[in-house]
Amino acid sequence: MQKINSKIQPIKLENDELSLLDQRVLPLSKKYIKARSYTEVTRAIKNMSVRGAPLIGIAAAYGIFLAALEYKKLEGKKLINKLKAIGEEIKNARPTAINLRWAVDLMLHEVASLDDTLEIITALKKRAIWIHEDDAQRCANIGRYGSKVIPKGAGILTICNTGALATGGIGTAFGIILTAHQYDPSIKVFASETRPRQQGAKLTTFECIENGINCTLISDTACGYLMKKGFIDIVIAGADRIASNGDTANKIGTYQLAVLAKENNIPFYIAAPLSTFDLSIETGDKIPIENRDEKEVTLINEGLICHPSTQAFNPAFDITSREYIKGIITEKGIVEGDYKKEIKELFNTSVIA
Amino acid sequence: MQKINSKIQPIKLENDELSLLDQRVLPLSKKYIKARSYTEVTRAIKNMSVRGAPLIGIAAAYGIFLAALEYKKLEGKKLINKLKAIGEEIKNARPTAINLRWAVDLMLHEVASLDDTLEIITALKKRAIWIHEDDAQRCANIGRYGSKVIPKGAGILTICNTGALATGGIGTAFGIILTAHQYDPSIKVFASETRPRQQGAKLTTFECIENGINCTLISDTACGYLMKKGFIDIVIAGADRIASNGDTANKIGTYQLAVLAKENNIPFYIAAPLSTFDLSIETGDKIPIENRDEKEVTLINEGLICHPSTQAFNPAFDITSREYIKGIITEKGIVEGDYKKEIKELFNTSVIA
Repeated sequence: MQKINSKIQPIKLENDELSLLDQRVLPLSKKYIKARSYTEVTRAIKNMSVRGAPLIGIAAAYGIFLAALEYKKLEGKKLINKLKAIGEEIKNARPTAINLRWAVDLMLHEVASLDDTLEIITALKKRAIWIHEDDAQRCANIGRYGSKVIPKGAGILTICNTGALATGGIGTAFGIILTAHQYDPSIKVFASETRPRQQGAKLTTFECIENGINCTLISDTACGYLMKKGFIDIVIAGADRIASNGDTANKIGTYQLAVLAKENNIPFYIAAPLSTFDLSIETGDKIPIENRDEKEVTLINEGLICHPSTQAFNPAFDITSREYIKGIITEKGIVEGDYKKEIKELFNTSVIA
Repeated sequence: MQKINSKIQPIKLENDELSLLDQRVLPLSKKYIKARSYTEVTRAIKNMSVRGAPLIGIAAAYGIFLAALEYKKLEGKKLINKLKAIGEEIKNARPTAINLRWAVDLMLHEVASLDDTLEIITALKKRAIWIHEDDAQRCANIGRYGSKVIPKGAGILTICNTGALATGGIGTAFGIILTAHQYDPSIKVFASETRPRQQGAKLTTFECIENGINCTLISDTACGYLMKKGFIDIVIAGADRIASNGDTANKIGTYQLAVLAKENNIPFYIAAPLSTFDLSIETGDKIPIENRDEKEVTLINEGLICHPSTQAFNPAFDITSREYIKGIITEKGIVEGDYKKEIKELFNTSVIA
């Protein structure tokens, strides 16, 4: 099976130096931040140069490795204690990012029983690279399963950014698009702008351009019209959290697309790795929705778009009930029948396809 | 019956001088353009200082009156010939605006049989004021009929701008909001940003603030979420053209709101004067949709929001089928049963309520 790569590499480790693509200045400029210390990595996570839950986790893992190099003069146990403190610091860079905590904990667990400094450093490097490659592999599998549901020459509508810029590999929903494109260059992507933060306009169109995929940017208001007019054959979105019944929290605007897809008889899919499922949550209405700063709505590129005394409301996510979702595409296959049962089964299968 | 006024007056004639609120710089600055010549009026229409179909018509009518003053040294018939040529010039300022042509023709028709210069000038002034006041009266009636469908303390979702800034009076959909607010100050407006041109963010929130109406700006992506969460009790939109069966063309994004309203059992209304109906068109799919410059999608406040080589698609309007519309609120009452029959009847009723 041919390995599919994105032309975009948002994170690279070379000669113990980390290069992080500065996503704050994309797509107008393509600039890498060089990091040799964990503080530089933490800063990049904090100021959102690095974004996307899986990618943040990978950056954090490399950050722990860089920290070990910085403190390599400490003997084993002292180094581990130092790394534990640094781990807390890195975790606090984005307090709600679940992958960040998971990656830091995994790194520290890896070396908990070691006491030789060189051995610790070697183990940390290996584990950080593994976390990165493991995520890439999961993306590749999602892409492989998902590309099978893309019709020949399809018009594909997507929202937000779910590609290489958000993950350690080719992405989730976008990974499917990239994979499908390898076999069928005639597919057409329609990227919804995704206000307020405009990740569709800023990042998804950029990933399409870099990878030679035909892409058209549309306003979030035009999605329904394009569906009705027959431009769209399939809608694919990513996920931030999925309840055990299949209800899915994702970027604000996803629910609308799902309703419009249903009304126009267009299949609507979610693409996400198993780490996105939260089996402790039964239904979508139990998933907490973060309301973010209203300035994200009232300002664009730091310029006010409304009267200065305008109040705004900025829910960052919405919930799409499972009845709107034709299938959830994971690294272990597609869930598309009895969600509750099939999701449970996925977690009981230990082999990754 | 109490007369309801907006705090915003986008057009005023005082001492034969026209003041036009410059809508290009709203809401960050509130500046009037003074016009004593028809060329100044034409320029304001062309550069979109004045916008909104009915308001453009009113400005054009005053423009013809100002032209007559400019050429008051011409004797009767020569003046009329001059005004005919000027009328063509004004019509070409925005070639697709139907109200503009209608207003210019009505003005010229008014004086076609006159031959005394002073009489012509007097008749033109009277007719221009009549066109302005007639539109205000239609808005007032729409507001009166429409306010009856607004529930007590309702959350009202609207799109684009349909208020004093677009008409000669309090507006259509916004006129209903303003009227309802006089009787029930507890109503809450949710203004959808309305990308690409952001009239919701720029103009509707401004009209709310100026008139003391509680208003919240939301991204176009958040409309569905707010409906599902119970924030919205009613959706009202304006119209650009209505077919004889009730299918309605309006700002891009309107169709989505109608589908989402239906899915969430929320009543969806259209508000428009009879001049918006095009009885020569049987169904919505016969209404031509204007695709505008893609720069409206890729640029905001003159700044690029995407990679410079991004292509975009910018349909300016969409069609909402009559089955999504609970009622069409006109200056003669609400159409809400057999659209085709009731619309025809409206046009056969000569008395305006």
